[in-house]
Amino acid sequence: MSKKIYFTPGPSQLYFTVEEHIKNALKKNILSISHRSKTFKILYEECIENIKILFNLNKNYHIAFTSSANEIWERIIQNLIVKTSIHYVNGSFSKKFYDYTKMYNINSKIIESFNKPYNYNIEYSNEELIAITLNETSTGISCPNDKIIEARSKFKNSLIALDCVSGTPSIPFEIKNVDTFYFSVQKCFGLPSGLGVWIYNNECIDRCFDKINKKEIVGSYHSLIKLNELGKKNQTPETPNVFGIYLLKNVINDMLKKGIVNIINETNYKSKIIDFTIKNHPQISHLIKNEAIRSKTVKVANTNKKSNYLIDKLINQNLIIGKGYGNNDYQIRIANFPTHSKENIEMLCDIISRTEF
Amino acid sequence: MSKKIYFTPGPSQLYFTVEEHIKNALKKNILSISHRSKTFKILYEECIENIKILFNLNKNYHIAFTSSANEIWERIIQNLIVKTSIHYVNGSFSKKFYDYTKMYNINSKIIESFNKPYNYNIEYSNEELIAITLNETSTGISCPNDKIIEARSKFKNSLIALDCVSGTPSIPFEIKNVDTFYFSVQKCFGLPSGLGVWIYNNECIDRCFDKINKKEIVGSYHSLIKLNELGKKNQTPETPNVFGIYLLKNVINDMLKKGIVNIINETNYKSKIIDFTIKNHPQISHLIKNEAIRSKTVKVANTNKKSNYLIDKLINQNLIIGKGYGNNDYQIRIANFPTHSKENIEMLCDIISRTEF
Repeated sequence: MSKKIYFTPGPSQLYFTVEEHIKNALKKNILSISHRSKTFKILYEECIENIKILFNLNKNYHIAFTSSANEIWERIIQNLIVKTSIHYVNGSFSKKFYDYTKMYNINSKIIESFNKPYNYNIEYSNEELIAITLNETSTGISCPNDKIIEARSKFKNSLIALDCVSGTPSIPFEIKNVDTFYFSVQKCFGLPSGLGVWIYNNECIDRCFDKINKKEIVGSYHSLIKLNELGKKNQTPETPNVFGIYLLKNVINDMLKKGIVNIINETNYKSKIIDFTIKNHPQISHLIKNEAIRSKTVKVANTNKKSNYLIDKLINQNLIIGKGYGNNDYQIRIANFPTHSKENIEMLCDIISRTEF
Repeated sequence: MSKKIYFTPGPSQLYFTVEEHIKNALKKNILSISHRSKTFKILYEECIENIKILFNLNKNYHIAFTSSANEIWERIIQNLIVKTSIHYVNGSFSKKFYDYTKMYNINSKIIESFNKPYNYNIEYSNEELIAITLNETSTGISCPNDKIIEARSKFKNSLIALDCVSGTPSIPFEIKNVDTFYFSVQKCFGLPSGLGVWIYNNECIDRCFDKINKKEIVGSYHSLIKLNELGKKNQTPETPNVFGIYLLKNVINDMLKKGIVNIINETNYKSKIIDFTIKNHPQISHLIKNEAIRSKTVKVANTNKKSNYLIDKLINQNLIIGKGYGNNDYQIRIANFPTHSKENIEMLCDIISRTEF
């Protein structure tokens, strides 16, 4: 029997080199080394270096590790917002970030829109932080690059936070237009879950110090200041997910060898194949009609019968696609991540095309 | 060349079955399954069930997963303390928990003592939370069980929190005497770092609701209420460290098969061998002279020369022991965890006995 292939929106299929890296980690005792050892410091430094190369970061940007993107939402709230934020919401994940601000008594505002998600309201141009989502995993809506540029030009006094969870590195954007961006590794990076990567610039550090000077609470072991201070020494405040950091370092290395431009080009190519398949299947239709905002990495489609009929038929052929987010029984989600080869996607699409359900 | 053996206080030698479990996880695609899938819910339930059996928990106690013990300190502060706590401190880790309370503006008190660490001051018997450490990893001081019993009898109105990080399950204690206890998995459980286990009773949940009713902030995705609510459905708020949960489930299973009584007895036996070795080596001496509070799982000893001389000689024989905590160059730490067999410890002690440095 052939092996299962996961086209789920994350956790998803492991990047094709991960199994080999896990075996090497065991051989090299990576899971037993002290997080205060020189070996760990070198590993940490190499991982940070790879992330910097991947995103071509300048010296204004810094990197910290957390346990999830959920944690990064909370750390952004604790460290970068004193009173106000605006959240451009077009699905359950961007909504969740907004909900969390309310739990911290932030005077946050929500601008919810699915058809025209990034019509900025410059009335709010003095809010402390603007939250945008590069790729909303629940609905498959992307934020086009020109809308990120527009945000930067309209919100000159605000920090701009870009949620890149299921988008980066497959969907490019200009980093200079955002002050902080972040992702978890179980999406495009094809890694086991349990690690978040938070990138922030000097303006974020300044904001955190502002907040501290106002005698506000910024958290403890994972305050931005603490993370930043220890990060400079290639250290983390707590014993981190060493395994995750090791695997991330190695997978980014593999991606750099392949070339990010190639990954982006392949993403676009595979995206078109999936789009064509959804468009031409009599029982499936795109949730997002507007191609300009349709995600290239997470395709969400409506089904005219319960989607389980299709999902189960594919499972029988060892192809695992995602259900609709939450309790939506009439939707499917198909991930198009770097580990999914053209051949994988062509095979999946070929079988979907031939499947009535 | 023989394989390295890590006697470091954590991360440490992997439990001897972990490598096999990692291979099985890969075979079974555990790292690709959705955290909202039935497969994950079953895995979660089995892991929780194993923890309940391991500690013989009654229905008053519940379990949640975090990313580290550091995180649990923060969640305890956010969820279980409104204004006051007392911290019995006898090393760097218990001190750190106290420091974190200050970052959250808690009116906390510290009672620091190394020789007689658990002389309770009943003047403080109305503080909201009492923090005790079963096994302080930095100094190798344990809290004797009778001192936990005494705490319960003296602090009737307080929640008692027991830090079990490098102690459990090797050092037994009576759970009914504490309201919450917690550990990270890279110590006695011999697992990769990146997972914390938080056990709390109904009184903790009540305290959290009290705090919410007072309009206090209790955090967001990892508030106790949120963790507890999703835990009942065998779910986590965020995409958790699925790998860690899978490995923990399996290692506890292995430990249960071996028998916890056997693990405790072996710990005691190996502890005596290490004690004897330290006592009789002309260049090494116990940091903790009082046997009643000397840890059985983390032995800390002073060296009459820089400890590196000894550590390096052991490295040459593939035996890795720990440095002193922090910048202490004249100390060693030796872990005595369940994965360290009698033969391992005997070999290590034999070689230490014969080593001049």
